[in-house]
Amino acid sequence: MSAPRFGSLRDGPSPVAQGSETFTELAHAGGARVERIASRAVRQGEWYEQGWAEFVLLVQGGAILAFADGTSHALSPGDWAHLPAKCRHRVAATAADGETIWLAVHFPPEA
Amino acid sequence: MSAPRFGSLRDGPSPVAQGSETFTELAHAGGARVERIASRAVRQGEWYEQGWAEFVLLVQGGAILAFADGTSHALSPGDWAHLPAKCRHRVAATAADGETIWLAVHFPPEA
Repeated sequence: MSAPRFGSLRDGPSPVAQGSETFTELAHAGGARVERIASRAVRQGEWYEQGWAEFVLLVQGGAILAFADGTSHALSPGDWAHLPAKCRHRVAATAADGETIWLAVHFPPEA
Repeated sequence: MSAPRFGSLRDGPSPVAQGSETFTELAHAGGARVERIASRAVRQGEWYEQGWAEFVLLVQGGAILAFADGTSHALSPGDWAHLPAKCRHRVAATAADGETIWLAVHFPPEA
């Protein structure tokens, strides 16, 4: 099993419905997962509080992440966020026009 | 330890010397690592054969990955490659002009 695989973040389930997100696993190994996320005009997404750390890179579009302490953080293409395990967060908004594309890395769950 | 961290792939060691690469760890957890790589006009980079799988996303610039069987694969922004453990590969070239920026995910080493 040593053959590489290739793809593009431009390819994915399409069209993404207004206000929703699609999640596509691209690779996994050793308990870690890499995922493509496509969001369209999300408003007040659901809260997440995971038992593992997550790294997200905003590739296209724009988004605002919100946290349980009331703070928020805007992301433009090239911006990333590292969310430790148990860091309660949600997507407060993504760009009104077009798709917002993310690459997400889910680290192995903590022991 | 639940505070998120933020950054941008636009920020990194600069300038990258002609023909060379810089590696910056952005996050790690559970044996997995996320890294920013900046390459400038690399030609015939060194061969890698790792005991873990790696996922790379080309974010800016362009590159050609080469493999031990003689095949190669060109990457443009948004393109990704998943390299299983033991998949011998190297960067054959990156764009002659400007920096090529990658996000690399190193999965936990296989048992």
